[in-house]
Amino acid sequence: MTIRTIIAATLALATSAQAAPDDRIAIAAKLRDTALAGNPAWPLLVDLTDSVGQRLAGSEAEARGRAWAKAAMQKLGLVNIREEAFPITFWQRGQESARVLGSNHSLAITALGNSGATPAAGLTAPVACFDTLAALRAAPDAAVKGRIVFIDHRMTVTQDGSSYGINGGVRRAGPAVAAQKGAAAVMIRSLGTDHHRNPHTGSTSFPAGTPAIPAVALALPDAELVGRLCARGPVQVHLVSTPTSQPGQSANISGEIPGSVPGEIVVLGGHLDSWDIGQGVFDDGAGVAITLAAAATIKASGQQPRRTVRVVLWGSEEIGVVGGRAYGEAHKQENIVLAGESDFGADRVWRVESRVAATGLPLFSEIAAALAPLGVQPQPGNDSGGGADVGPLAALGSGVLELAQDGTRYFDYHHTPDDTLDKVDRAQLDQNVAAWTTAIWLAASDDRPLRTKP
Amino acid sequence: MTIRTIIAATLALATSAQAAPDDRIAIAAKLRDTALAGNPAWPLLVDLTDSVGQRLAGSEAEARGRAWAKAAMQKLGLVNIREEAFPITFWQRGQESARVLGSNHSLAITALGNSGATPAAGLTAPVACFDTLAALRAAPDAAVKGRIVFIDHRMTVTQDGSSYGINGGVRRAGPAVAAQKGAAAVMIRSLGTDHHRNPHTGSTSFPAGTPAIPAVALALPDAELVGRLCARGPVQVHLVSTPTSQPGQSANISGEIPGSVPGEIVVLGGHLDSWDIGQGVFDDGAGVAITLAAAATIKASGQQPRRTVRVVLWGSEEIGVVGGRAYGEAHKQENIVLAGESDFGADRVWRVESRVAATGLPLFSEIAAALAPLGVQPQPGNDSGGGADVGPLAALGSGVLELAQDGTRYFDYHHTPDDTLDKVDRAQLDQNVAAWTTAIWLAASDDRPLRTKP
Repeated sequence: MTIRTIIAATLALATSAQAAPDDRIAIAAKLRDTALAGNPAWPLLVDLTDSVGQRLAGSEAEARGRAWAKAAMQKLGLVNIREEAFPITFWQRGQESARVLGSNHSLAITALGNSGATPAAGLTAPVACFDTLAALRAAPDAAVKGRIVFIDHRMTVTQDGSSYGINGGVRRAGPAVAAQKGAAAVMIRSLGTDHHRNPHTGSTSFPAGTPAIPAVALALPDAELVGRLCARGPVQVHLVSTPTSQPGQSANISGEIPGSVPGEIVVLGGHLDSWDIGQGVFDDGAGVAITLAAAATIKASGQQPRRTVRVVLWGSEEIGVVGGRAYGEAHKQENIVLAGESDFGADRVWRVESRVAATGLPLFSEIAAALAPLGVQPQPGNDSGGGADVGPLAALGSGVLELAQDGTRYFDYHHTPDDTLDKVDRAQLDQNVAAWTTAIWLAASDDRPLRTKP
Repeated sequence: MTIRTIIAATLALATSAQAAPDDRIAIAAKLRDTALAGNPAWPLLVDLTDSVGQRLAGSEAEARGRAWAKAAMQKLGLVNIREEAFPITFWQRGQESARVLGSNHSLAITALGNSGATPAAGLTAPVACFDTLAALRAAPDAAVKGRIVFIDHRMTVTQDGSSYGINGGVRRAGPAVAAQKGAAAVMIRSLGTDHHRNPHTGSTSFPAGTPAIPAVALALPDAELVGRLCARGPVQVHLVSTPTSQPGQSANISGEIPGSVPGEIVVLGGHLDSWDIGQGVFDDGAGVAITLAAAATIKASGQQPRRTVRVVLWGSEEIGVVGGRAYGEAHKQENIVLAGESDFGADRVWRVESRVAATGLPLFSEIAAALAPLGVQPQPGNDSGGGADVGPLAALGSGVLELAQDGTRYFDYHHTPDDTLDKVDRAQLDQNVAAWTTAIWLAASDDRPLRTKP
C-alpha cells in the first residue's frame, strides 16, 4: 500500500461535522472508535520498515527515515513541518565474533553502543566470571586486570518493564566499572528475556578518563553456556569487536495540527532512529507509526483542536538520548503544556499515567474514562516519568502523558535482530492508535492548565 | 556433574533381583518408573553439549563426539564398543552474507549442505520470486536464467512433523531445479515454524551433471521481507556464500548389553553429528542421551535381556544419511530383529508405531500398554517408516520401533543456531528415556519373531 492510498483510506473515515466544544467527550469516543475501525499505522509501519529499514543514529538510513517522515507528515495533512539538526557522536559497529578457546563454541555477541574496539585480529584473555554487577564491584582489581569480565546477571519478565530499569545498570555502568579495574573487555548477559541466539545491544558509557574498552552482550543461550563453562574450570575467549566513532549529525522532525488558540502545544511522538541489527519496528517504528496515525485520525476527522497538536519524531535516542535533549534545549521557551512518547513496542496500552498540575487531574479522569473501553486502567498517583525523549521537556515543566504498553514480550525483541515486522500484532497496534487519538484529542481540546512549572 | 557421578547415581537406582522371564511385564513397569525417577540423560546431554559442542559431520568436533561416546558407553557399562569408519564428502560452510541492493536490509541466511559457492566477493543478481516449488518448475528458463531464485513456500506446525515431509522437497530439490534452469543462486524460505532471525540449514543435493550452485535459506522474517519487496518492484541481492567440499571421514559408534541368547539384536540410537550453527542438542544430542540413558537404566537394573541390546550412534546423518547407509551395508548379515532411533528433539513421546512381522504385533500391544501411563498412544497400522538412520536396516528386514515425539515446536529450532541446551524440557527428556527403556526391555526380553524379511 502506498502513502497515497493510506491517506485516501484515512480520509474516507473522516467526519465532516464541526462539533461544539462541549461535545469534546463525545468526539473523543467517536475518534477512538474511528481509530479502532481503521487507521494508517500499519501501512505506515510496513512502508517505513520496507522502504527505509533500520535507522542507526547518524547513518544515511536515519537521514532517509527523516525524509520519509516529512513526506508522511505532509501526506497526512500535518503542517509546519520542521527538521532541526544537532551534532552527535556517530558510533558504528565493526566486525564482531567470539569463540571459546580449545572448543568449537562460537558465541553470539553484539557490541554495545559507545564501546571500544579490540585490535582488528581480536584479543584473547581468560574470563573472569561474576554473577552480578555488585560482585564485580566488590572484586579486587587483581581478579579483573587483563581479563575479559563476564557479568551473568538475570533479568525477569515484567509487564511494566521495571526489570529493565533494575538491571539496566549492568549494561550502562558495568563496562566502565570493569575498565576502571583494568579489564581487557566485557561481556554481559543480554538485557533480555528470550532464549534465542540474538543478543541484545544497547548503549553503555565511559566517564571521562576511563578507557572505552570493548564491551559486548551475549545471547542468553551463550551466556548460559559461558556460565556453565566457568563452573567447569578456566575459560579463555577470543573476542573480535571493532566499532568506530566519529563526529556525525542527526535531527528531530516535527509537524503540527494547528490549534484554534495559538500558544499552547501538546506533543506526542516516537524516535526515528533504531539499532542497526534489526529492522527498528518495535523500537521504535511502532511509536512513529502510532503517533503519526493518531494525529492523522484527528486531522482527518475535521475537528480542529483548541491547542496545537505537534508530532515530534526524535533522532538519536538509542545512543545517548541526544535528540530528546536537543529538543528540550531548543524549545525551552515554548509553552508545551503536555508531552508523551510511544516507545515501548506495539503491544497494547494497559495503563494511563500522568504528571501534571493539580488543575489537570480532571482531564486525566476524562482520559481514563474514555480509554476504559480499550482495557486501559488509570495508574494511581501523578508521577509518571514519561520516557527518555520527553524527559527533558518534563524537566522544564511540561505535563506528562504516559500510555504505558504491555511489556511482557518487549524484552524478547528489544535491541535484537528479532525486532522485525512480523512481531507486530496489528490489533494491538490499532488499540495504541485509538488510545493516543483519544487522549491527545481530550488534552488538545481542553483549556485547563497542565504544566508543573510556569 | 561428571560422568563418574552420573553413573554412580544411576547404579544407585539399580535393583539387584534377577526376575524370571514371566516377570518381564512387571520388570518393564519397574524400569519405566525407575527411569522417570532418575536417569543420566540430562547430565549426559549437558556434558556432550558443553565439552564437545556442535559436531559437524567430518569435523574434528565430530571425532571428539565419538571419543566422548565411547567413554560414556564404557562408564555406563556397555561392552563390545566399536567404531566403524566410513568415507564422506566433508562439506564446510564459509563466509555468508546477503543484502538487498539500494537499501540497508541485511538478510539472515545460512548455506545449505552440499550447496556450491559464490565467488569470494559474492555475486549480484536480480531476484526471481516464486511462491512455491511448483511455480518454479512451471517457469520458463528465461525467467530464471542468471537470477537468484527465491522460493517462499510456507510450512505449518504439525505435531507429527508431517509438514517437513511435505515441504522438504523445496530444500532438497529446489536448488537443483533452479540450477537446471540456469539460476545463479537460490534462496529459500527456511523450513521452519519460528519467526526469529535464525535461518534453518539442511542438506540439498544436485544430480550428476547439474551444477552445485549457491543455495541458502532465509530466516522467516527475512523471507517475508523479500516477499514484500518483490511485491513492491524489482529486487537485487548481493549474496556471499563460500562453502567448500573435500574428502573426509566419519564413523558409527556402538556398544552393547549382551543378551542371554546370542544371535538376536535390538538396536536403538541417535546420531552423533549435528549441524554447525547450533549446539546439536535437539538434533540430535537428545537422541544420543535418551538412548544411552535407556540402555544404562536397563544395565543398571541388573536384569539381563534375552536379546542383545545395542546402542548405535550414527555419524554423518545430516549430510546424506551416510552413517545409516554404511551401518546397514556393514551389518546386513546380522540378525537385527528390531531397530529404532530417537531423532526428533527432546519433547515427549506421544505415539508408538511399529513395522514388524505379524508375530510381533502382540509385543507391540504389550509395549503400548506399558507406555500408556506415560501418555503414549498406539498408532493404528503397522507401517512405521522408522526414521533416516534405521531406514537401511528396515529395508533389509529389521522390524521397526518408532517412539514418535511431539514435534509442535521442533521446527522452531531444527537446524538453527537456536538448537541449544536451554530448549530442553528436562521432564519431557526423562519421559523419553522411560519410554525407550520400557519398549526396549520388552522387545529384548521377548522371543517372538519381529523381522519383516528373513
